[in-house]
Amino acid sequence: MNTIQNDRFLRALLGQPVDMTPVWLMRQAGRYLPEYRNTRAQAGDFMTLCKTPELACEVTLQPLARFPLDAAILFSDILTIPDAMGLGLYFVDGQGPKFKYPVRTPKAIQNLTVPDPEDQLRYVIDAVRLIRTELAGKVPLIGFAGSPWTLAVYMVEGASTRSYSKIKGMLYDSPNTLHKLLNILADSVILYLNAQIAAGAQAIMLFDTWGGILTPTAYREFSLAYLERICYSLVREFAAQPIPIILFTKGGGQWLEVIAKSGCDAIGLDWTIDLGEARARVGNLVALQGNLDPAILYAAPEQIRSGVAMVLESYGHGSKHVFNLGHGVAQDMQPEHIGVLVDAVHELSKPYHQ
Amino acid sequence: MNTIQNDRFLRALLGQPVDMTPVWLMRQAGRYLPEYRNTRAQAGDFMTLCKTPELACEVTLQPLARFPLDAAILFSDILTIPDAMGLGLYFVDGQGPKFKYPVRTPKAIQNLTVPDPEDQLRYVIDAVRLIRTELAGKVPLIGFAGSPWTLAVYMVEGASTRSYSKIKGMLYDSPNTLHKLLNILADSVILYLNAQIAAGAQAIMLFDTWGGILTPTAYREFSLAYLERICYSLVREFAAQPIPIILFTKGGGQWLEVIAKSGCDAIGLDWTIDLGEARARVGNLVALQGNLDPAILYAAPEQIRSGVAMVLESYGHGSKHVFNLGHGVAQDMQPEHIGVLVDAVHELSKPYHQ
Repeated sequence: MNTIQNDRFLRALLGQPVDMTPVWLMRQAGRYLPEYRNTRAQAGDFMTLCKTPELACEVTLQPLARFPLDAAILFSDILTIPDAMGLGLYFVDGQGPKFKYPVRTPKAIQNLTVPDPEDQLRYVIDAVRLIRTELAGKVPLIGFAGSPWTLAVYMVEGASTRSYSKIKGMLYDSPNTLHKLLNILADSVILYLNAQIAAGAQAIMLFDTWGGILTPTAYREFSLAYLERICYSLVREFAAQPIPIILFTKGGGQWLEVIAKSGCDAIGLDWTIDLGEARARVGNLVALQGNLDPAILYAAPEQIRSGVAMVLESYGHGSKHVFNLGHGVAQDMQPEHIGVLVDAVHELSKPYHQ
Repeated sequence: MNTIQNDRFLRALLGQPVDMTPVWLMRQAGRYLPEYRNTRAQAGDFMTLCKTPELACEVTLQPLARFPLDAAILFSDILTIPDAMGLGLYFVDGQGPKFKYPVRTPKAIQNLTVPDPEDQLRYVIDAVRLIRTELAGKVPLIGFAGSPWTLAVYMVEGASTRSYSKIKGMLYDSPNTLHKLLNILADSVILYLNAQIAAGAQAIMLFDTWGGILTPTAYREFSLAYLERICYSLVREFAAQPIPIILFTKGGGQWLEVIAKSGCDAIGLDWTIDLGEARARVGNLVALQGNLDPAILYAAPEQIRSGVAMVLESYGHGSKHVFNLGHGVAQDMQPEHIGVLVDAVHELSKPYHQ
């Protein structure tokens, strides 16, 4: 039952030999695929798509039907937790996510309760179960959540911001209030991810999208500390299989040494750091995932292949590398170019595993 | 004529002893000041404000009348050069700068000409002359320009973007075309800044706002190489006074070692790096400018003072530090808080200069 036909992704995360470098892409299921746009149109809106396990399963599997990707990732959103807390998540085209009821006062934070994954977040856990069934052991399934800090940014700001005035005002003026919020979120993420693991998620990714807007000391206190707690509180083996954790702090390249000690198995990297340099800095402590500049997908196939070759070369020999972009696939990228990338990773990485 | 009453800022950049750490703030003249909003209303729109030397001079001096800042910075915009090239710069509230005629083809780039600073950019040079007269030697005047890469991003994209698809498509697909554009821009920046120096600018700041979106190798090839050329082509001594250059690549904390070798006198830092760590990495090669998280200005005065104390402590003893924010003052910040910051820098830095 737990046999995976292609376990290259899990093997790389655990430092076991592989025949080729595994590859998956952040936002591999998404608007760049016409079949996704069809399913999304059928759902009506984005949250209905997320909340309908059959449709979430369908879009999760779409990129795998096109490309020989080495992992599937649950189709969902990092803001399901605050939505389940009653903040009223909604999306306005071109403006990013918004909340009807942002959380800004100690009282509002006091009133928050940890969502029950099998109740308010049941639709996610059901989607995980369904995807595992439909995947039928082809490739592993990645579950995910947003980091407590990143969720707090959205919950306090309530909408996209350039200045982060509300969350940072809270951080500097009322750190204890913010810590209360982060603790409730860490508890929620732990329950949520353990439920995903119990339902069939075979690896976990933590997205710390906004960790990079912090100072080095604030990052450790308000983001990394909670990620550490999550790493130590998740089920790390399920059905006799290890469950690796990948931690991705966008803009966190300056802090790799401390991130590597967080208890995660792998660090996701954006494209602003040389992979070889990152590897030298973290040593053998963790695997690395990344880090092609996604914008290279706007270029011609030969440029994409040469970009892939450079990333593989910068990592060099060794199995603890999962190929990915440094950020998600954008909606205006061509599906054919994704195919070029995936094939290039497999083809060009073989010499590094001989 | 060249005597400056308060030359703390220039002394720190040149590594000469100072009594207190000098401080100025990016966007110290701006919308957070009611007197600025009045002058701006009088001008009608932002570009008229920039293009009217008397008004540009007036807003340049406004923050100095309120706070004991150690430098003035020319009030202008980094996009004056592409505007002078005929791209039709305009601003839409809340959407950032836009160009009527973005530059995207080899032919369009071929047709660009280097603006004459004393002709199409005369209004800037006149403003520099007027500000120097009005400053009457109180504090030094900083001139500035955008980096060629940053200007190219705006010129090719034509409007704000999250994906940078057009400029990055050009970078990966047609690097030679992009290099042509960057060369014209480097020539333009050199002429423009040398004219500012001849008109009275006593230090130069180069803003590389978008350098941080590049990979490490692309940063060196498409941004830093041109900044180096500029550093080596500017008048570095005028009227028997050295003209120091500060180079600020937002998000460039990972590349300090190479930036320090660019020929600049100082590196501007955002708040994602510890100043002491940055100092250890660049050694005595350059001065450092920064790097308080601007968002701390949303907090109470005692938090601002404690944030200032932490930045001063992280730099430690030594004169090669100019205090600044890691990014500009935002329009919703309170002027009183700026005053708290400036006073705290002067008061709390004295022990570090004894």
